[in-house]
Amino acid sequence: MTAQPVLIVGSIGIDDVETPFGKAERVLGGSAVYASAAASLLAPVRLVGVAGEDLPKDAFGFLERRGVDLQGLQVVKGGKTFRWSGKYHFDLNARDTLLTELNTLGTFEPRLPASYRDTRFVFLGNLQPRVQEQVLHGLSGRPTLTVMDTMNLWIETARQDLGRVLEGVDVLVINDSEARMLTGTHNLVRAASAIRLLGPANVVIKKGEHGALLFTAQGTFSAPALPLEDVFDPTGAGDAFAGGFIGSLAREGKTDMEAMRRAVIAGSAAASFCVEQFSVQGLRDRTPRDLEQRIQRFRDLARWS
Amino acid sequence: MTAQPVLIVGSIGIDDVETPFGKAERVLGGSAVYASAAASLLAPVRLVGVAGEDLPKDAFGFLERRGVDLQGLQVVKGGKTFRWSGKYHFDLNARDTLLTELNTLGTFEPRLPASYRDTRFVFLGNLQPRVQEQVLHGLSGRPTLTVMDTMNLWIETARQDLGRVLEGVDVLVINDSEARMLTGTHNLVRAASAIRLLGPANVVIKKGEHGALLFTAQGTFSAPALPLEDVFDPTGAGDAFAGGFIGSLAREGKTDMEAMRRAVIAGSAAASFCVEQFSVQGLRDRTPRDLEQRIQRFRDLARWS
Repeated sequence: MTAQPVLIVGSIGIDDVETPFGKAERVLGGSAVYASAAASLLAPVRLVGVAGEDLPKDAFGFLERRGVDLQGLQVVKGGKTFRWSGKYHFDLNARDTLLTELNTLGTFEPRLPASYRDTRFVFLGNLQPRVQEQVLHGLSGRPTLTVMDTMNLWIETARQDLGRVLEGVDVLVINDSEARMLTGTHNLVRAASAIRLLGPANVVIKKGEHGALLFTAQGTFSAPALPLEDVFDPTGAGDAFAGGFIGSLAREGKTDMEAMRRAVIAGSAAASFCVEQFSVQGLRDRTPRDLEQRIQRFRDLARWS
Repeated sequence: MTAQPVLIVGSIGIDDVETPFGKAERVLGGSAVYASAAASLLAPVRLVGVAGEDLPKDAFGFLERRGVDLQGLQVVKGGKTFRWSGKYHFDLNARDTLLTELNTLGTFEPRLPASYRDTRFVFLGNLQPRVQEQVLHGLSGRPTLTVMDTMNLWIETARQDLGRVLEGVDVLVINDSEARMLTGTHNLVRAASAIRLLGPANVVIKKGEHGALLFTAQGTFSAPALPLEDVFDPTGAGDAFAGGFIGSLAREGKTDMEAMRRAVIAGSAAASFCVEQFSVQGLRDRTPRDLEQRIQRFRDLARWS
């Protein structure tokens, strides 16, 4: 079985990040970058995104070397790349956003290269719902699986647009606090049920260090997170999770419950790499074999007989 | 293989509990009660505790009918039973303690019946470390496995006594916030390592709705919690967990890592029964077969291949 290609759209950013372990300035970030770094360990990736001319020349070199197709990367002449700056607190669950400059991301009109249009596995990473919708509309025919992420900003400011995108996707991958915000429901089982009524038949709720829950018509799956002594930088972990998730499904070319269970574990493994270093460093030098070994650690962690 | 008896010492209480779902007044509670209700689904239980004369006549009837040995129950003439009153907030993780009256528990001197002294599986439920220690000293010879629980109150007010008890036990079962308080360490992997240096070779950290983590010299095990639409009353869930945990080990007569993995799941299953109703109602009418079926739900929840 040959792995299916995955189309990934999302933000591309230049981040400043401060955690209790240190600082990283002007490092590569963005949902499309983290998701592609993870998914490309499992399947061919077709990236869609926008950047300015202020990115380092070789910023995407590590993705190109993994065969990521960058035809869908739009570089705006004289433009500036999306900037984000955040500071994490001691417990690493809460963070303050210090700066958000949309720059070229604010006027992004995604154009799908002709060779992308037949992609069957699609991940709409976290960015404006309007842009996510345009990507869906640019596809020829109905994909096998569409997965989307979103964030508090769009829940608060673009609820209608978000609602339309939700109606058209198969899986929402979202973190616990955003699931609560989206549904006005504290209990995650009830929140997942409420989200499934909004469109996506399947919901993955990411709980950070507490793992992830998958809710489908076939039942519920609970995946652990790898207990780590040090989490250096949580930035991008959710995007890496989503990339690993859809990458695993695309590699198998399957979307049934059993495949989704494996995909949640692949996503969790990718996220565990992500948080071990600043920026995309934790994913940059990893190989498919590293990911396989990390998945084996999850097996040891969660098994009982 | 015949199940080994379990000795359980802990508090016996009369509780008033308020949750977002309602109120329960003057209901049976206490760590020994919850732990015995859970453990007795798996193994013969020998209870040690103290109560006043204000308990309803048939308070322990459901435990007796399950064969719990009550020879170690001391009823103080004219005395009042330990009283606790608490109120849970909307998210059920935080609670306010409204009232604590130690009453007969304050001067409790445990006396082990002669028939209890050779018990090989011992659970020191949450009460004064000094009392936990007296129970250990009352045993003849070294038990196969000693498991203990504790709480913030004893960490703050009886640290030295607690330290001595910790040195003599094999497993500490503790919740996440108390593990952090005990060690001054936020990260749970580091907290578990620090606790293991204090004595217990094995540490179970209970994370409520996020499951539980087992740390041993042989590795780490992560167990999910059952995602529930309604948690009516979290009171006693940690005690029920510990009862299910030691009950499972006593039933098997084993203490190796594989047996401990199963024991964490049995504890999680017992805790999931506990929170579904007020007081001990969720455990009262359950059978060993119910517990087996609940464990099967955990298997479905966490498996992947």
